[in-house]
Amino acid sequence: MKIATFSVQTEQHIGLVKDDQIISLTALCPEEFPACIKKFIERGSELRSRAEQIIEQRVNDDAIFKLSEVNILPPIAKPDKIICVGLNYFDHCKESGMEPPESPVIFSKYANAIAGHNDAIEIPINSTEVDFEAELAFVIGREAKRVSEEEADDYVFGYTIMNDISARDLQFQDGQWSRGKTADTFAPFGPVIVTKDEVGDPHNLAISLELNGEIMQDSNTSNLIFTVPKIISFLSQSMTLMPGDLIATGTPPGVGMGRNPKIWLKNGDRMNVSIEKIGTLSNHVIA
Amino acid sequence: MKIATFSVQTEQHIGLVKDDQIISLTALCPEEFPACIKKFIERGSELRSRAEQIIEQRVNDDAIFKLSEVNILPPIAKPDKIICVGLNYFDHCKESGMEPPESPVIFSKYANAIAGHNDAIEIPINSTEVDFEAELAFVIGREAKRVSEEEADDYVFGYTIMNDISARDLQFQDGQWSRGKTADTFAPFGPVIVTKDEVGDPHNLAISLELNGEIMQDSNTSNLIFTVPKIISFLSQSMTLMPGDLIATGTPPGVGMGRNPKIWLKNGDRMNVSIEKIGTLSNHVIA
Repeated sequence: MKIATFSVQTEQHIGLVKDDQIISLTALCPEEFPACIKKFIERGSELRSRAEQIIEQRVNDDAIFKLSEVNILPPIAKPDKIICVGLNYFDHCKESGMEPPESPVIFSKYANAIAGHNDAIEIPINSTEVDFEAELAFVIGREAKRVSEEEADDYVFGYTIMNDISARDLQFQDGQWSRGKTADTFAPFGPVIVTKDEVGDPHNLAISLELNGEIMQDSNTSNLIFTVPKIISFLSQSMTLMPGDLIATGTPPGVGMGRNPKIWLKNGDRMNVSIEKIGTLSNHVIA
Repeated sequence: MKIATFSVQTEQHIGLVKDDQIISLTALCPEEFPACIKKFIERGSELRSRAEQIIEQRVNDDAIFKLSEVNILPPIAKPDKIICVGLNYFDHCKESGMEPPESPVIFSKYANAIAGHNDAIEIPINSTEVDFEAELAFVIGREAKRVSEEEADDYVFGYTIMNDISARDLQFQDGQWSRGKTADTFAPFGPVIVTKDEVGDPHNLAISLELNGEIMQDSNTSNLIFTVPKIISFLSQSMTLMPGDLIATGTPPGVGMGRNPKIWLKNGDRMNVSIEKIGTLSNHVIA
C-alpha cells in the first residue's frame, strides 16, 4: 500500500495511491480513517487489512480522485520525532572530509521543518550555503524500547523519501548540526509512505537526486553503513520510539558541498529525489 | 501566576499554585481551561486575565486542592520543540574543556525525554556516565519568526526549571550530542511555569542544584553568555518558534563531569534544582 495525506479544496483526507488515482479512505469511512496517517499507524495492522477490504468493495466512486487534481500534503504533519542519521554512506563521509563513524551519528529536526511534495523550500535569510541530501526514511509502526536488531523489522511501518536540506554554514558554524538542519521547510518528505510489505528489502533500492534535471546523487541503499534494523536497535536502547516517528537514514555522495566548485541551492531550483519502489519527491526553492 | 499541570485520582487539571494550595482552573471552568497548558498559552494573555478573574471569584471550593495531595505532572506533556543551548556559562565551558562559543550552540531533546517533578530519572542500560545540569528554561508564548532582540521578550510566556540530564559517554561518543541528551526521562522540567510578569528580569536569578543534599551548582543567571532575547532572536532567524516550545538556556559550572573525581548519577540519588522566583524541581534516580 502507498498511503498519502492530501486535500481536495479545504478537506483533508488519507488515501491509497493506485497508478494515477488516489482513493480516499477518509471519504469512504471517516470514523475508521481520520485524515491523519499517524492515527492510522497507531491502530496497527488490522486497520491496514480493513483498508484493503474497503477499497476492494469500492463502495463510493466519489472517493476516487485523480492524483493530478489533489494537493499532496506531508504524509505526517507532526511526527513526535524526526531523527536523522548522518555520515551513513562511505563515499559521503569522504566528500564531507569526515571519517566513517563507528556507530550511527544522530541529529534532529523539528516539525517546523516539515514540508510536502511540491512545497517550496525556503532559503533562510541567514544562510548562503543551502544543500540537498537524498535519503531513504522510514516510519515507526509500534512503540519500540530496547529492541534487538533481529526484532527491529517488526517495528517498521513503512518507507518514504526525505530530502535532508542542510544549511552548511549554520551546520558547521555551530559544530552541533541541528540548527543548520531544522530551518523551516528543511524536511520535505513524501509523497507517500509505502508499507514495508510492498518495499521488501530496504537495503537494495536505487536512490537518486536530480537538480534542475541533472543527476547529482545516484546510489543504492545497499551502500548504507548502518542498516535500518541496526538504527532502530541502536536508538531504542536509550529512547522510546513511537508510532509515526520519522527516521532518515543518511545520504549517498554527490551533495553540493562535496563538489568543486560547490553547488548551493538558489531561487527557482527544482529537486527531484527518487527511490525505487517509493516514487519521486519534488520540491522547488525560493529565496 | 504559577501554572501547573496536575492530576487528582485519574483526572488531569491545570491550575494556579498559591502558597501550599493549587486552584484548578479546569474544575472551575473546563470549557475555558482544558487540562493542557499548551492550549492555554496558544489562546494568549486575555485568558490569563480571565483566569485571575475566575480565581478571585472562587466560585467553587471543590476546585481547591492541597499541593501535597495532587500529583504534579510535566507542565507541558509534548512541546513541539525542546531546544537546548549548550556552553552558555563561561565557567561551564572551562570545566567542559571547551572554548566559549561565539554564538549559541543548539541541540535537541524529544518529548520522550519529558519527565515531571518527583518523577524518576532512569539510567539507560547503555550508559554509565549520566550527569545533571541545572537550567533556567523558558516557554514561548507566541509564534516567532525573524524576531529582533528588542522585540523578543514579547514572545516569552514564562519561565520554568529544567534538569538537562546528559549521558556523557553517549554524548561524546557521537560528537553530535542529541542521543546522549534525549534518553527517556532526560528532560525533567517544572514543577510550574511562572508567567514572565511574575519573574521580572530573567537574568538575575539565583540557580542551584543539590545532589543528595550537597550543593553541586550555585550560580546566577546573570552569568549567562547569551541572554533569553538573544537566543529567541538567534533561533527565529531560521526556524519558527511556536507557543509551548520549551527552550533551556544552559547550565552553570559544577556538573559531575567537571569534578575530580567525576560524579555520575546512581540509583537512589536525589537532585533538587532551585531557581529564585520559580521554585524547586526534585527528581530521584533509578538504575
